[in-house]
Amino acid sequence: MERHFDEELNNLKRKLLQMADMAQAMIGLSIQSLKERKEPLAQEVFGIEDNVNRMEIEIEEDVMRLLALRQPAARDLRLLTAILKINNDLERVADQAVNISEIALDLVKQPPLKPLIDIPKMAMLAQKMIKNSLEAFVHHNPELAKSVCEDDDEVDKINDQIFRELLTYMIEDPKSVTRAVDLILVSRNIERIADHATNISEDVVFIEEGKNIKHHIQEQP
Amino acid sequence: MERHFDEELNNLKRKLLQMADMAQAMIGLSIQSLKERKEPLAQEVFGIEDNVNRMEIEIEEDVMRLLALRQPAARDLRLLTAILKINNDLERVADQAVNISEIALDLVKQPPLKPLIDIPKMAMLAQKMIKNSLEAFVHHNPELAKSVCEDDDEVDKINDQIFRELLTYMIEDPKSVTRAVDLILVSRNIERIADHATNISEDVVFIEEGKNIKHHIQEQP
Repeated sequence: MERHFDEELNNLKRKLLQMADMAQAMIGLSIQSLKERKEPLAQEVFGIEDNVNRMEIEIEEDVMRLLALRQPAARDLRLLTAILKINNDLERVADQAVNISEIALDLVKQPPLKPLIDIPKMAMLAQKMIKNSLEAFVHHNPELAKSVCEDDDEVDKINDQIFRELLTYMIEDPKSVTRAVDLILVSRNIERIADHATNISEDVVFIEEGKNIKHHIQEQP
Repeated sequence: MERHFDEELNNLKRKLLQMADMAQAMIGLSIQSLKERKEPLAQEVFGIEDNVNRMEIEIEEDVMRLLALRQPAARDLRLLTAILKINNDLERVADQAVNISEIALDLVKQPPLKPLIDIPKMAMLAQKMIKNSLEAFVHHNPELAKSVCEDDDEVDKINDQIFRELLTYMIEDPKSVTRAVDLILVSRNIERIADHATNISEDVVFIEEGKNIKHHIQEQP
């Protein structure tokens, strides 16, 4: 029975990693479609989204079944509730990639505003954060999870920088306004992906150390 | 024992409603500070946020304790996991109100761009959605929950309208750019509050009917 539960947990972790891979692919494709102005890449994102949505529901049902049948305690219970939340975060990451793709489809119809450098850079950092947060989860590595929370500050910095740069574009040339606002929204979407990676990392620290680091509130001694 | 569990559940629901009240107050104050250009109201929002963050952790710990000690099945299990998610959504609603307050503090230093009509209207609708989603939760009313999901379309419509109007301001007058972008971001924040109300409503339908209506995927017969 105990071994069977372990197997089911491993199965669930595998599904979560599959879901993370799909979300990562969606981020990559959406940014590539934006940067290289390729409509079909954005369309591909919408296709993957359906799979992510199905997987989210499947994982949720698996967790509920395990909670009901196995009545896990302590660490396993923390693990299962964390899986529920990570699942939810990954689905929202996928939503952000969909938003980016929709904007990419809009921008491809207009002349390019500027070569995109900072946005892809920021997206790569957010992808790294998602990757590390999941790796920290699978390999029980709370230190790696904490490093993800630190990367989030860097993402916020790039986001501010992009925002300020695009404001100057808009002020100098009214014709740039709609495109610049679109890019500001993309930058916000990436910032939110990084926030989800941070949420996941906080969950990992919670599983591993039983300590809630959200809102920087430390556990009472 | 069974009765004791019911008491604990009721206690938990009460805390969740308190949390919802705080989040609602934060939305109201943030929008009022924006509309009436009153800095102290925005500051008040930051104060309430600390309480929301503390309450989120408290509710999470209560749910974990109940899951571990009571080993609930079926409906109670769905209820507890839904409380976890609603808790998370309410905390994110509070975050959005904080974002709005930060923008309000920024805008109060500049001359007003235009009288705000649509943004407060949109915020009131989002507040109504939060209120109804929690009411649907407490009074076991899946129909009310479904009506919240319909209200979300109206919010999206107002959001688009605000976006288009502010674009024209920016295009006509470069001096309006920073303020107009700020208002676009406020409008997005309100849209996300409405999304959280929709999430909560989907959870209510799930508790009451055991049916997942997320992503419009209907349960297989």
